[in-house]
Formats: sequence, structure tokens, C-alpha cells
Amino acid sequence: MTTPLKVALLGCGTVGSDVLRLLEDQSGDLAARIGRPVEVAGVAVRRPDRHPDVPAALLTTDAEALVTRPDVDLVVEVIGGIEPARSLLMAAFEAGKSVVSANKALLADDGSALHAAAAKAGVDLYYEAAVAGAIPLLRPLRESLAGDQLRRVVGIVNGTTNYILSRMAETGHGFTEALAEATELGYAEADPTADVDGFDAAAKAAILASLAFHTEVTAADVYREGISAVTATDVARAAEIGCTVKLLAICERVTADDGDAASDSVAVRVHPAMIPTTHPLAAVGGAFNAVFVEAEAAGQLMFYGQGAGGRPTASAVLGDLVAVARNRVAGVAGPGVTTYAGLPARPIAETPTRYHVSLDVADKPGVLATVAQEFARHGVSIATVRQDGHGDAATLVIVTHSAPDAALSATVAALREMPAVRGVTSILRVEGLS
Amino acid sequence: MTTPLKVALLGCGTVGSDVLRLLEDQSGDLAARIGRPVEVAGVAVRRPDRHPDVPAALLTTDAEALVTRPDVDLVVEVIGGIEPARSLLMAAFEAGKSVVSANKALLADDGSALHAAAAKAGVDLYYEAAVAGAIPLLRPLRESLAGDQLRRVVGIVNGTTNYILSRMAETGHGFTEALAEATELGYAEADPTADVDGFDAAAKAAILASLAFHTEVTAADVYREGISAVTATDVARAAEIGCTVKLLAICERVTADDGDAASDSVAVRVHPAMIPTTHPLAAVGGAFNAVFVEAEAAGQLMFYGQGAGGRPTASAVLGDLVAVARNRVAGVAGPGVTTYAGLPARPIAETPTRYHVSLDVADKPGVLATVAQEFARHGVSIATVRQDGHGDAATLVIVTHSAPDAALSATVAALREMPAVRGVTSILRVEGLS
Repeated sequence: MTTPLKVALLGCGTVGSDVLRLLEDQSGDLAARIGRPVEVAGVAVRRPDRHPDVPAALLTTDAEALVTRPDVDLVVEVIGGIEPARSLLMAAFEAGKSVVSANKALLADDGSALHAAAAKAGVDLYYEAAVAGAIPLLRPLRESLAGDQLRRVVGIVNGTTNYILSRMAETGHGFTEALAEATELGYAEADPTADVDGFDAAAKAAILASLAFHTEVTAADVYREGISAVTATDVARAAEIGCTVKLLAICERVTADDGDAASDSVAVRVHPAMIPTTHPLAAVGGAFNAVFVEAEAAGQLMFYGQGAGGRPTASAVLGDLVAVARNRVAGVAGPGVTTYAGLPARPIAETPTRYHVSLDVADKPGVLATVAQEFARHGVSIATVRQDGHGDAATLVIVTHSAPDAALSATVAALREMPAVRGVTSILRVEGLS
Repeated sequence: MTTPLKVALLGCGTVGSDVLRLLEDQSGDLAARIGRPVEVAGVAVRRPDRHPDVPAALLTTDAEALVTRPDVDLVVEVIGGIEPARSLLMAAFEAGKSVVSANKALLADDGSALHAAAAKAGVDLYYEAAVAGAIPLLRPLRESLAGDQLRRVVGIVNGTTNYILSRMAETGHGFTEALAEATELGYAEADPTADVDGFDAAAKAAILASLAFHTEVTAADVYREGISAVTATDVARAAEIGCTVKLLAICERVTADDGDAASDSVAVRVHPAMIPTTHPLAAVGGAFNAVFVEAEAAGQLMFYGQGAGGRPTASAVLGDLVAVARNRVAGVAGPGVTTYAGLPARPIAETPTRYHVSLDVADKPGVLATVAQEFARHGVSIATVRQDGHGDAATLVIVTHSAPDAALSATVAALREMPAVRGVTSILRVEGLS
């Protein structure tokens, strides 16, 4: 009970500082829960002078020396980014250290190699904080639902874009104004690309899909569209059909047409979509995250909480730290991640989706028939149509049934060329309609 | 990889049958996830003739012989109730078997003794299915949040009462009619006592509180009120103040007045309460369950899903089975449950709560002052008052601030004796108001 477990902390930004604070504040509880006290062996940072709150004796710029130090048991990595994080984690595994990471980009890029290195060394790799901040999500997927077959994981996993879309809906503003407001309030970073272009959500989607489907999925396998093209008109059109616009990360197991489970594939995508206001995800506002899970036996589940922020993320890091530390005390490693299913990634073109399309058309006989024929010609079935005339023009609002994405985008391309169509005013995918 | 792990199944009702079915349907996936195939060694039932779907060679009435059979690795208990389940689990632990149980009554009654027996034998005891069916909840509490301090766990954990209260709100019916409807539709059992009187929810609350606060809490420590006294008037009054009535299981860590964490206590209670319709739990309708968790660092979290039913519960059982089986393959036991905190249970009388009280009073000068004085005399602060006159009578609707429950109930008792008070038409606790 008395020999402390020693932790190397890599990075000491917002999350790292809160990890240090919680380790100190809760040292008694952590020791009781783990069976041994936990002690910080060192904190690797680039600029030691910027961390006056951390005891100088702990600070080091030599992260590699820290992770391989013989007295270090566990490594907590909150640097982010691919390198040097990747090399440091590999060095830690080779040196027999277990790792807790919050690094979504790295896990989404190279998760399988990292898991393999951890398994080879007989140590743990946990990363609950990498997806949806404090929400316990990866452990439920890895363990609680390990006896079930997952069908879909649909989540709002990026707080910045959710805030921007929420504000667009509330104010009627366009994307540019809403982004400016988010930046001013600190909800968006100075360079918002990773968030608004969907890179952050795509990395999280890759991690979720890997765990949900026991299949290696990397960020490169994820179809990605951000929210910068979402217009005030899209948001208004969504409201007219009882929907709201959200940036969704969608991981689906798609059953082949022949119904043979062996031909199943995995479709993983991030894009804005209209969802009904009655859908549980529709009410998730501002910087909150929520993830909706559908499993064969468990049915529908939802997980909700804070997706970012120093303390929520640090809570997830410490939860993993307790698990990894308990395993270390017991002299074991926890269950690894399996990718035995090896399901192929289905390209977006072949992925079944539904579209909402708003058109300005000439209000004269035969236009609706011509438009409807164009959908039919591409094998796309129409679910609902609303036509509103105004003078010699009319607005057509069409929601399709599910069809391969390529057929839908080809239909829209063809509509744009039709003389009777004066403009395509809004196109967005639709999710969650029954 | 080839030697199968052998599972003894105790009980083969709704959940047990679905466990058998899922074990068969997913045998390939389970083997890949565990690292070894899983095989059913036997199924203990009272009446073998009632299970024509189970191969006769597997059926036995001798549950004790089954759990101690040398070839059995894991025991799944879905009998329910205290005995013989308790003795069978103890026998299983003594024989070195790990156990997965769905038995809330037993875990709430004697969880510590069972955990101690499992720890002594170096085997696992998991019971995710005992609370909130398919919702991954106990594992997040045990593990994901193990690095945090939990403040509150508030849940809708009984589908039958939630269905009844939802129907009362929708139809304006009283408890008796709504119960009759629930019974007819199969949402309530022929003897609905365990559900409507809150015993089921109290057992779950005890389990949640034990895990959340690292403290031994049994069903006997839980204050319990069912929903049979909830009237149509209560439900209508709730709607008038923007609330809805739910049966809540509430587990709180109460900080002592001196602010010393060492004097903290745990208050665990089950009772109907008004909650604002804007609260995340308010929208949880019908037979769904949801649990709201507040932690120091993680902030607010919510878990939502199906709380009962054969397949959802079987999914939770199988998730535990995979965890226990993986540990068995690795030759280890997972982390046990700690009760190191040993926080005392706070009696309901000393637990801070808020009340809603509706009174019919004589509409004459001084009545409001007299009523208000009665609250003040008991040290209860009033948050809001609404007075509506009608003829010579008036309705007073009062919502209090937080005060010890004993002070509130003493206030209500005193109000009933006041000549100016013609009747107390509705009293319910209020939760979730800011």
C-alpha cells in the first residue's frame, strides 16, 4: 500500500493542469480506490517558464527521458497531435509503461499500431477523454456492450460546431456571423478549421466506429463535410419541416442487400444533417455532447454530458488512470481492443442516406412531374413533397427516402441543369426520420 | 482458443431465455471478443417441463450441484429474490466461479458480503443488469468515474411507475385507473407492490449509492415512498408550476454544515417528486429509464435507455459475461468494489429537500400571513407563493426552499390544524429547481 505508483504527465495545458490539480485534491480517495498512492514523477512541457504553478523539480523538457524512466509506472499524454505524441507513446510501451491518452487525432490515425504495441508489451492503453470529454462512452462500448451487436452510433461530438448551429437556429444568422460570435466568446479557436470543417468530429467518429464494430477504422476512412456551407436558409428550411440542423458523427453497420452478415460493411461519416426536433439529439444545445447508440439487444441508448473543458476532460483521464493503476497493482493488463471483424469501409457514394432538397421552380404545369421524374430516373424514391406557389414561381421542398448517396447527389446535379429549376436553395441530408 | 469457457445459467425466465438465445446467435463474435468460445454447461430451473426450447440434457433442478461442478467457469444468475440465489452465489464463489447477476434485491440486501466472498475467492461479481436494464451505468460509476467525486445520482429507474405517472399526466386519470391500464397492457405485474411502493427503485438506489459513494448502502438505508398516494390533483398542480411528477431514486452526498468533508453523509431516498419540465429527466417517458449524475469534475452526465425487458437486460448480462470471461482467460479478477469511504446514512428527517404545498384557505385578511408564519416558525423559507381567490375561498400554492425534511413535514402537519386552512390538497417534494 505504501509504495506510490509514479505517473509521468506529458503536456500541461488546460487539461494537464486540471489533471495535476485533481491528482492532488483527491490523493486520499485515489489511493483508497487504487490500493496504492499515486505520485507525479514528472511533467514534460516545452516551456518550463510558463508553468509557475508546477514545482520546478517536476518540470522537464525531455519527454522521452521521462517516459522511459525506470521509476515511472504510468504515462498520461495530453499533448495532442500526431508527433511527438506517437513516438513518446511507443517509447512508453517499449519501456513497459501503461498509457492514458486524450489524443483523438493520434488514436484515430494510428490506433491499431498503438494497441498492438500496448498488447505486445502487456500494458494498457486507455483514452476515454479522447471522445466526448467527460461522458463515459468508450468504456461502455468496449465493455458494457461487448455482448451485443451494435448497429449505429450517432453523436454530437463537437461542441464548437454545435454552439454555432444552435446560435444560427436561435438568431437566424448565417454561419459567418455565428462563427464570429463563437470566436469572441471563446467557444471557437482562432483557427477554427479542425472544428468547423469536421476534422475533430471525424477523428472521434473513427475511434467510435473502431470500438463499436471491432474493426480498424481510421480518420481517412471517414467521409467528412463541415458546417461552413450551412446557410441561414438551410436552418430555416429545417425548422419548416420540424427539424433542426446538427453536425453528426454517424457510424453504421450496413447490411448487404443479400442480407448476408458476412458481407456487412461499415459506413462512417461526419456531415451536417436535419434531424427531427423530437429526436433525443435535437435538444442537445450549446457546448454539450451526446451520443446515441443502437444495439441489437440493448435497443436505443443515449449518453449525454460535457464534451470538452479542462475539468470534465481531466475527470475522464483520471477514471482511466484509476483503471490502469488498478491493473498495474494487480500485475495485469485490462482487455485490449479487438478488430477481428475487419469489416470493409463503405464509401459515401454507396452509403444509404436521405436528402432534403428545396428548389425554386417555375410555377407552370408539368414542372412537378419533370422534377419527380428526375428523382425516379436515379432510382430515388420521394417521401414527402410540399409545393408553395408565389406569383409565377414556386418552392418545392422534397424529402427523399433512403438511397445511395451517389444517386442523391446525381439527382441534385441533374436538377440544377433543368430549365424549370431556377435554383437549388437548400440541400441537406436528413437523419432520424422514421 | 479452443477449450470453451463453461457457463452455468441459474433461472430461465424472460431474461434467461434471451441470454441463451444471444449466447447462441453471437457465439462467433463472443469467442472472438473473449479469446475462447463460451458454452452453456447447464440451466437450473424449478420445472424442467416448462422449458421445451432448452435441450433436455442441459436442464437440471439441482442448482447447487450445477454451480459447483468442476467444469463450470462462470455462473449467470437470473433467478431473482434473496434465497436460494444468495446461497447459490456463495457456493459459486467458494468453488472459485465468477458470477454475473441481474439480482437487484440480493445485491441491495447483501452486496458487501457477496463482494467480500468474491474478493476472498479471487473471482468476479458483476451485475450491470440489476439497475436500469441495458443502460451501461454501474460500470461507468465503478470505473469511468473512479477518478472523480460524485455529488448526486438521480434516476428514473422503474419503468412501471414511470409509465403510470406518464399516463396520469396525459389522461388526467388518478393512480387507480392508470395502474389498471398498465396492468392490462402488461406494464405492471399482477401484484404491482414491488414497483408501485418503490421497493424495486429502493433496491436500485442502494446499489447506485454504494458504487457512487464507495460506501455500504443497503435497501434498509433507503427512505422509500411509492406512487400510490399521488393524485390527479398532484399531477395537475405540477403542470401549473411547469413541472411533471416522476418517481425518483436520489442518492446524494450531503456536506455537513461545518463544511468538513470528513463529516459528509449519504442520503438515499425514493419518492415521487415534481421536477421542472425543462429538466433532462422530465422527458423520459413510458417504460424508459434515465439516470442523471453530477460529479465534481465531470459535471452533469445523463444515461438513457431501456430499463427492462428480456433482450435489453440480456445485453447487460452478456456485457458482464464478456468482461468476466476475459478476466478468466487472463487468469485475473477485475477491480472489486471499495467501501472505504464508509459514509454514514443520513435519515430522511435530516435530509434537505424542497416541498410544494397546495392549500385551500379562507379568503380573508391575515390568512397568508398566518400561513407564512407557520413556515417561518419551523425554519422553512418560502421560495414562491401563488394565491388564487375564488369566492370566499382561495388556493395557496407554496414552493419552499431547501430545509430538513422533518421541518417540512412538521410545517405541513401544523398547517392541517390551522382553522383558516380548509384542506391541504397536494404535497409533493420538488427536485431540480435551481
